[in-house]
Amino acid sequence: MTGLLSIAGLGPGAEALVTPEVTAALADATDVVGYIPYVARIAPRDGLTLHPSDNRVELDRARHALDMAAEGRRVVVVSSGDPGVFAMAAAVFEALDADPARWARVEIRVLPGITAMLAAAARCGAPLGHDFCVLNLSDNLKPWALIEKRLRLAAEADFAMAFYNPRSKSRPEGFARALDVLKEACGDARPVIFARAVTTPEEEIRIVPLPECRPEMADMRTMVIVGSSTTRILPRDGAPVVYTPRSVDA
Amino acid sequence: MTGLLSIAGLGPGAEALVTPEVTAALADATDVVGYIPYVARIAPRDGLTLHPSDNRVELDRARHALDMAAEGRRVVVVSSGDPGVFAMAAAVFEALDADPARWARVEIRVLPGITAMLAAAARCGAPLGHDFCVLNLSDNLKPWALIEKRLRLAAEADFAMAFYNPRSKSRPEGFARALDVLKEACGDARPVIFARAVTTPEEEIRIVPLPECRPEMADMRTMVIVGSSTTRILPRDGAPVVYTPRSVDA
Repeated sequence: MTGLLSIAGLGPGAEALVTPEVTAALADATDVVGYIPYVARIAPRDGLTLHPSDNRVELDRARHALDMAAEGRRVVVVSSGDPGVFAMAAAVFEALDADPARWARVEIRVLPGITAMLAAAARCGAPLGHDFCVLNLSDNLKPWALIEKRLRLAAEADFAMAFYNPRSKSRPEGFARALDVLKEACGDARPVIFARAVTTPEEEIRIVPLPECRPEMADMRTMVIVGSSTTRILPRDGAPVVYTPRSVDA
Repeated sequence: MTGLLSIAGLGPGAEALVTPEVTAALADATDVVGYIPYVARIAPRDGLTLHPSDNRVELDRARHALDMAAEGRRVVVVSSGDPGVFAMAAAVFEALDADPARWARVEIRVLPGITAMLAAAARCGAPLGHDFCVLNLSDNLKPWALIEKRLRLAAEADFAMAFYNPRSKSRPEGFARALDVLKEACGDARPVIFARAVTTPEEEIRIVPLPECRPEMADMRTMVIVGSSTTRILPRDGAPVVYTPRSVDA
């Protein structure tokens, strides 16, 4: 193989959550490629070229990164969180899959990161301490009907649920529909966590009973975690703890 | 508050995947509490007492850690992976919930880590690049009927699936039943990843079509990831890539 492409997760925001593996890859890189706000987290230095690009150009970005690696450069594609969870890793492999011979000699490795749901869960207690599911609520890349079907089945399975990309300016109605489905399918006051910009200075966390949830409580920087029927709220001085016990009785 | 209890994730095994936040908490600790093999990962030093304990004593361990923190010690409870995913965080909050006044003045924080499914997924490509669910296959703490129900609903939702604790010596039959359910419910040759001891020197990864999966391919150190109906295998020199595209067509 010639050329190296690393697809790295920067974690949710705090530097203390960037793994040493990712830090080492960035220190060794000649080029860093990614969405503008994520590339902005990388300190400039001699010998490193930063390639920020806009949202929704993931496949172009992936091809550009693969091409540079094929030329022998040491390229790091950065995502926030973990690159394998609704982020750049799948996009790079989609690009590769469409033209595998072109990049046959590029070594590709994925460097995991702390994905937003783990950071958000940690801030609140342990809401994902029992079985759960993880959905991207954006319908840019899948039909809304599939999202709704999955929400209903997840409620029937009594999974806790973690939602990425719950709501954007361009499609504000999706999350409203998701909440309506959940209110109908769950039918109780289970806790919902709205965790915005977790581990950054703008962090904001709200815990709201499902019937009181409103769509405008989320935006694209918000991670939403919906408890299962067994999820509990434990009041404490300061902030309450939200956790899902490990056990379910027979 | 007096006393500090940190519940920290050590990641899947490699030191390069331990976050700086966790490293700092360990450097500041007076006491480290956890399951024997996880505590064995902590280097002894003056001023630090290690408290390794056996498996299946999670609540005793949690109470011990809370008591020491209440005495003013700086205690770190360690889990492998992430403490919030089938690990010690929920156990600590269960203990707390049973007797909240006893530990009312202990500050508790959860420090996230790279959970096994993210590390396993990264080693293989991006199998969790689209919606997925996460199950603990152990029926120590929940009835088998619930596991089977969740597997069937997850297949109907066409989630990729990540399984923790697939198979132990004391209950080898559960994973065999899980595979039977999946073979029946999925009815195709989707890829299944058996990722054992990921990021350690004993790492072993196999990619097996679902109809050919056998129970003995997994043990308690194995993370199992089952692709969705859209998960693809991309042959490459060296190892193939397994990834789930971001898109599903309408």
